Amino acid sequence: MKIEKNQVEQHNQQHSKQHERNFLFLAETLTNQGVDVGSLLQKIGNLQIAIPSWALGTGGTRFGRFSGGGEPRNLEEKISDIGLLHALNRSSGAISLHIPWDIPQDAEATKSLASSYDIIFDAVNSNTFQDQKDQKLSYKFGSLAHTHKDVRQQAIEHNIEVIKYGQMLGSKATTVWLSDGSCFPAQQNFRKAFQNTYESLQSIYSHLPHDWKMLIEYKPYEPNFYSTVIQDWGTSFLLANKLGKQAFTLVDLGHHLPNTNIEQIVATLMMEGKLGGFHFNDSKYGDDDLTVGSIKPYQLFLIFSELVEGMEDKNSKNPIPAWMIDASHNVKDPLEDLLQSVEAIKIAYAQALLIDRKELADAQHNNDTVKAQEIVQNAYRTDVRPLLAEARRRNKAALMPLTLFRELKVREKLVDERGKLTIATGL
Amino acid sequence: MKIEKNQVEQHNQQHSKQHERNFLFLAETLTNQGVDVGSLLQKIGNLQIAIPSWALGTGGTRFGRFSGGGEPRNLEEKISDIGLLHALNRSSGAISLHIPWDIPQDAEATKSLASSYDIIFDAVNSNTFQDQKDQKLSYKFGSLAHTHKDVRQQAIEHNIEVIKYGQMLGSKATTVWLSDGSCFPAQQNFRKAFQNTYESLQSIYSHLPHDWKMLIEYKPYEPNFYSTVIQDWGTSFLLANKLGKQAFTLVDLGHHLPNTNIEQIVATLMMEGKLGGFHFNDSKYGDDDLTVGSIKPYQLFLIFSELVEGMEDKNSKNPIPAWMIDASHNVKDPLEDLLQSVEAIKIAYAQALLIDRKELADAQHNNDTVKAQEIVQNAYRTDVRPLLAEARRRNKAALMPLTLFRELKVREKLVDERGKLTIATGL
Amino acid sequence: MKIEKNQVEQHNQQHSKQHERNFLFLAETLTNQGVDVGSLLQKIGNLQIAIPSWALGTGGTRFGRFSGGGEPRNLEEKISDIGLLHALNRSSGAISLHIPWDIPQDAEATKSLASSYDIIFDAVNSNTFQDQKDQKLSYKFGSLAHTHKDVRQQAIEHNIEVIKYGQMLGSKATTVWLSDGSCFPAQQNFRKAFQNTYESLQSIYSHLPHDWKMLIEYKPYEPNFYSTVIQDWGTSFLLANKLGKQAFTLVDLGHHLPNTNIEQIVATLMMEGKLGGFHFNDSKYGDDDLTVGSIKPYQLFLIFSELVEGMEDKNSKNPIPAWMIDASHNVKDPLEDLLQSVEAIKIAYAQALLIDRKELADAQHNNDTVKAQEIVQNAYRTDVRPLLAEARRRNKAALMPLTLFRELKVREKLVDERGKLTIATGL
Amino acid sequence: MKIEKNQVEQHNQQHSKQHERNFLFLAETLTNQGVDVGSLLQKIGNLQIAIPSWALGTGGTRFGRFSGGGEPRNLEEKISDIGLLHALNRSSGAISLHIPWDIPQDAEATKSLASSYDIIFDAVNSNTFQDQKDQKLSYKFGSLAHTHKDVRQQAIEHNIEVIKYGQMLGSKATTVWLSDGSCFPAQQNFRKAFQNTYESLQSIYSHLPHDWKMLIEYKPYEPNFYSTVIQDWGTSFLLANKLGKQAFTLVDLGHHLPNTNIEQIVATLMMEGKLGGFHFNDSKYGDDDLTVGSIKPYQLFLIFSELVEGMEDKNSKNPIPAWMIDASHNVKDPLEDLLQSVEAIKIAYAQALLIDRKELADAQHNNDTVKAQEIVQNAYRTDVRPLLAEARRRNKAALMPLTLFRELKVREKLVDERGKLTIATGL
Repeated sequence: MKIEKNQVEQHNQQHSKQHERNFLFLAETLTNQGVDVGSLLQKIGNLQIAIPSWALGTGGTRFGRFSGGGEPRNLEEKISDIGLLHALNRSSGAISLHIPWDIPQDAEATKSLASSYDIIFDAVNSNTFQDQKDQKLSYKFGSLAHTHKDVRQQAIEHNIEVIKYGQMLGSKATTVWLSDGSCFPAQQNFRKAFQNTYESLQSIYSHLPHDWKMLIEYKPYEPNFYSTVIQDWGTSFLLANKLGKQAFTLVDLGHHLPNTNIEQIVATLMMEGKLGGFHFNDSKYGDDDLTVGSIKPYQLFLIFSELVEGMEDKNSKNPIPAWMIDASHNVKDPLEDLLQSVEAIKIAYAQALLIDRKELADAQHNNDTVKAQEIVQNAYRTDVRPLLAEARRRNKAALMPLTLFRELKVREKLVDERGKLTIATGL
Repeated sequence: MKIEKNQVEQHNQQHSKQHERNFLFLAETLTNQGVDVGSLLQKIGNLQIAIPSWALGTGGTRFGRFSGGGEPRNLEEKISDIGLLHALNRSSGAISLHIPWDIPQDAEATKSLASSYDIIFDAVNSNTFQDQKDQKLSYKFGSLAHTHKDVRQQAIEHNIEVIKYGQMLGSKATTVWLSDGSCFPAQQNFRKAFQNTYESLQSIYSHLPHDWKMLIEYKPYEPNFYSTVIQDWGTSFLLANKLGKQAFTLVDLGHHLPNTNIEQIVATLMMEGKLGGFHFNDSKYGDDDLTVGSIKPYQLFLIFSELVEGMEDKNSKNPIPAWMIDASHNVKDPLEDLLQSVEAIKIAYAQALLIDRKELADAQHNNDTVKAQEIVQNAYRTDVRPLLAEARRRNKAALMPLTLFRELKVREKLVDERGKLTIATGL
Repeated sequence: MKIEKNQVEQHNQQHSKQHERNFLFLAETLTNQGVDVGSLLQKIGNLQIAIPSWALGTGGTRFGRFSGGGEPRNLEEKISDIGLLHALNRSSGAISLHIPWDIPQDAEATKSLASSYDIIFDAVNSNTFQDQKDQKLSYKFGSLAHTHKDVRQQAIEHNIEVIKYGQMLGSKATTVWLSDGSCFPAQQNFRKAFQNTYESLQSIYSHLPHDWKMLIEYKPYEPNFYSTVIQDWGTSFLLANKLGKQAFTLVDLGHHLPNTNIEQIVATLMMEGKLGGFHFNDSKYGDDDLTVGSIKPYQLFLIFSELVEGMEDKNSKNPIPAWMIDASHNVKDPLEDLLQSVEAIKIAYAQALLIDRKELADAQHNNDTVKAQEIVQNAYRTDVRPLLAEARRRNKAALMPLTLFRELKVREKLVDERGKLTIATGL
Repeated sequence: MKIEKNQVEQHNQQHSKQHERNFLFLAETLTNQGVDVGSLLQKIGNLQIAIPSWALGTGGTRFGRFSGGGEPRNLEEKISDIGLLHALNRSSGAISLHIPWDIPQDAEATKSLASSYDIIFDAVNSNTFQDQKDQKLSYKFGSLAHTHKDVRQQAIEHNIEVIKYGQMLGSKATTVWLSDGSCFPAQQNFRKAFQNTYESLQSIYSHLPHDWKMLIEYKPYEPNFYSTVIQDWGTSFLLANKLGKQAFTLVDLGHHLPNTNIEQIVATLMMEGKLGGFHFNDSKYGDDDLTVGSIKPYQLFLIFSELVEGMEDKNSKNPIPAWMIDASHNVKDPLEDLLQSVEAIKIAYAQALLIDRKELADAQHNNDTVKAQEIVQNAYRTDVRPLLAEARRRNKAALMPLTLFRELKVREKLVDERGKLTIATGL
């Protein structure tokens, strides 16, 4: 299924009057406050969020999985699904692949298919947290950190292979998420596990093309429940520093202990030039992988406030981070969930852009805590949705992506095409 | 595979000298402190911990599962596995079944098989957190709390059926664990969900045989990640009170928010006569389902201190709770894991029995906090393992169950019998 | 210092044009959505939040306290401070007293002073978590739960005295917050402590005037760091049920373990007719007592969504809860902090009122999780500040209370009047 | 008050028979297991734990403080109190001073007094989290991180002064604990606060004597409740690395978010040669500052297991860390509390020394998780108290320090000497 340009145009036509009323009022309000609305719209419109290939099917928990229907059955259908999203919001123009779930059979054909949807290939992801059917050695007790050299070697080679697939498709980064760790005290020697991991990463790093980045994820627990080799940003940062200039830390919002001040971690990493990328999702308890902005939208805004500050800092040595959603859609339609997530990310971004940085810096310098709060909450309390809609309109995307998705009966058509009982590869 | 009496006897013979040295020293020490060692041994020996049928195979997470070998392929083999444990420790003389994973084809034969191992049937468990292959309506959005009456009815009938199976086998309780809840704010109306749950439980309760108990579990999250209908002990207790005398709260150690004082919950429930049962496991982060005593053994001891106090209280209206392990063996041999868990439970129980209650009550009355701590830590710091070994010896169980398990190469033999790639039903 | 009517009028005049532009646009938008804006404004305008007498000075931590200046030196000045707030926002028309910090010397004069500011007396609060200078027996080891009968009796009598002061002033409720608990395992016998607390509360309850409520607060920890006698809502609810119809649970937002779903607790309590009152504040880690809405505004909105649903339920047996702020102003001007808190509360309330309940009920019934989220987030994302301003304008309060507070140099004048180094009584 | 040698001897005489029975049995058991008991006793006996000067009086919370009696009124009496502890256990032979609470008037006299008790001077501590009476600029909004240069300069000078006092007394380290941070989002610019802190530390570092260490503490929250400049080990480690060879991270057990794997942090820091010191205490919720080992003794043991491994590693570049207790004695007699804490530390240390490292390394290499757990739990479950007693006996300390403390009526005598209402300086 494909969404045609004229379907979007017709939808926009239909809602244009209402939209214009809202947008013009807001634009005037912001202009009066000294905001350059045109530049704001451009920034909002330009932000692209990569969609991971594994987020297009229904997710599950250890207790079970309740599939929806019409899930993509192969890489081509995954790309097509992201094409649907991108046609609706022009903000999802990248896909992040997961090897071995998404091995391209014909890289050129795959690239050209993606290109037909205006989609590029973001970071590639390795998988050493599961055993594949034909796999020689098991990752039950770890991969890059394993006590046995041959298991580590197998995992290293897999990661190098992942990079090769990425090169074929035009990716520029590889993300390493390790589930390595232990379920019980004393199961693992912390120091040897760290040392093994470091040496394994060095081997992979030595195969990294010179214009690539290695993004190192951290996570405190799950699927291991006592320790994780890369348990926090400090450990990831330590490894990234040891490895070299092309190694960076990747922040997944769900990978923190209760009450962590994530925005401060973001600020620190950007300050040190080591924030490589972001996995967006939301959570209340652990790595719940919920829709972005569904639980703690204010925290998301505060994180974007740091990102904006870091990105707009002329002296910053931090490259633009890779943006990606990493969620699990257990009870929602995956495509609808992704539309909501992208919307929430852009709302937070737009609000963060509205913060009066000069005024804020003054309030901070004077320790005027009340005023500093007023400044950021003024930005947060602003209803920026008309800005997002206008940015989409200018990019030929839909004013109301979710509404159009439902009006066009996209899911019903996908079920017709693909069947009710399909299961996305990798799930 | 079966462990023969003479295998146990031979093992005990071999280790008796060492054991006697340790036991006699400890017995003398305790006797000098005024402890009645004989009575202590009897209590320790009598404590039986039920093994859930689903704990006999390798567990997994949403990220994958790494099976071991020789897993039981059916109910008979599960009973046989528990028979092995019970032969080793004479402390695992009960099985807790899970319907529909363990439907007995011929109840009398099943009972007689269990009986041949000295095993009885503990609480039965329903399953409305997954969809079964031939199921008419889906539990994706709940079961007893579902917004649709026909789904609730289906779930009610399943629970009634579970009770029927339990009756056939001689069980005296049914455990209701509901995963019902929501993943997102506003997904569910809290009040309607509670009301539906209550009414559904009433229907099931009305089918409860007069000498049965209904055990209501609570859990704050997972597999739902925003809310759970029965989120905490307060909600379970409220429901149990509304339902009637046969309804009780069941405490699973892993079903609490960070830092919860579980021992106080246990004390409160026993005081109100509503502690129906216990699911033992250990955890560091969430419902990690780790080996009992592997992470927080002191907390386990403090919980047992409350249990002992409640059970030894002459005026208590609380019945003896049902004891059960509920763990997931992701990286250990399930049977070895269960042997370690039972040992940890009994260590905590023995230590709790050693607390000088009279002296403690005095210290508490006088607010002598230092002394109160000395009294309980004196009990906790005592190495009670010789008491457990002696209690086992007197029950014709092995002095060192885990050692004997390995010496007899039990797992290797099970793999030979059942094969490497078996998967326990329900996993 | 007093704020005069014409000062407010002048301020409103000055900002009226800007305000009208914003309000008219929003009113039109909402009217088009079928919202009755007049009724909405009335509800927003009517909500009164009580200010606790102890929140008018600078707060501190165990590490120290950094006073501001011009703090109220006695009960009269505290009432005058709330008068300032109420003149600015017409939403703080009640004071909650703390005995023995605020004993009225002449009740009639105190009432008449308050009345001159349109302020009434909300719940009175007892203090048994500190020792007063002339106190006979110490509360070091508890008060209502103490192991010694004479200490309990002293605490009971204090609570009865508090009720008497409240009666003199026209209060209709007494709030019992107990710090009773223990710092170490085994320090306290949980069951005896509960029983003592229950009996002590019974004694106090028997002195409660027939038209009064007893509000029972719960808290998991601090100032005791192992256990608290009333550790959670379940315990408070159990006590309130045992005590009788006039006893209710009071929810303080900061008194929960990490990740607690507070909105569900609110829904449960209202359903059972036992939500007696609310202490508003915000927090990231523990009982941080920060400005309302400064950390988790979305959670506050979700809580108000439950409150609105409960209050608008025709069949509800729950009385209107008592609303109160309970915060500690460590780094902000207390009055500015309170203005921000009241604003945040009313924003959440207004947003919750905007939820289309009929549409939401449909989405929930159909398990349309995506739509349910859209409905509540549409309300949350609406910039309702013009509604609050208009409601204030209609009540003769200031369009922008905080701005006017600063323009009038209120704090500077209070410092002039009272001095730089005053310390509010009780701090 | 002073404890005389013959008082200790008499006590030991009295309990020697019982002790010998227990010790000989354990020594034989361990010897049979291949343990070198003599060397073990030496290690246990040699471990010295510094006592902080502020831990000798009753602690408090923001809600109040309930003093005991006989608290030390000045530095001399604090040293004398530690002298009492050291006479009892010969394990508390160092004091850690806090400036400005403990400024020595005559350094030589102070040294000589301490020396008379066999006490040396451990790390000195600065205080920029409170304002002192005569202080020019306030630390309300920070010290080394403050936005104003003159406040930072004042704090730098204070730290340099602290080092000078330390030099006079023979200290070799200074501990910097910063409460700098913010209570509200946007109050502080994270990056500027970090930069200011770094530069301030550089200034202090440049005044560090060449044989000194700078120990940098981290803490996630309190007394600031939104952010802390040095929020976690990663931030402290980053600063220590930037500063140079003499800068190290200090771990306080209570300064972590819920569920943190502290033992892994310890292992990582030692591996990198940056673990400078340790503040021992225990906690259930936050920085509760409870008696060591009173809440999570198994975690303490696991931490010591890492410490022992790091210290016994021949290739380790980590210096021996500084050991110190940092607790707050709110409901216990401070001296009794400290005796319990030292005992708990040494128990964990002794248990950790009992781990069979060779066997454990093998089990770990083979991923024999069950066996690895058996090995460490075998050590943990051993009742090592007779070893501690014997080590004390050999050092001429008391077999049972707490018992002797009470028999000698030490507290009663201190109250007689100093009075009931004394308050230790700094509290």
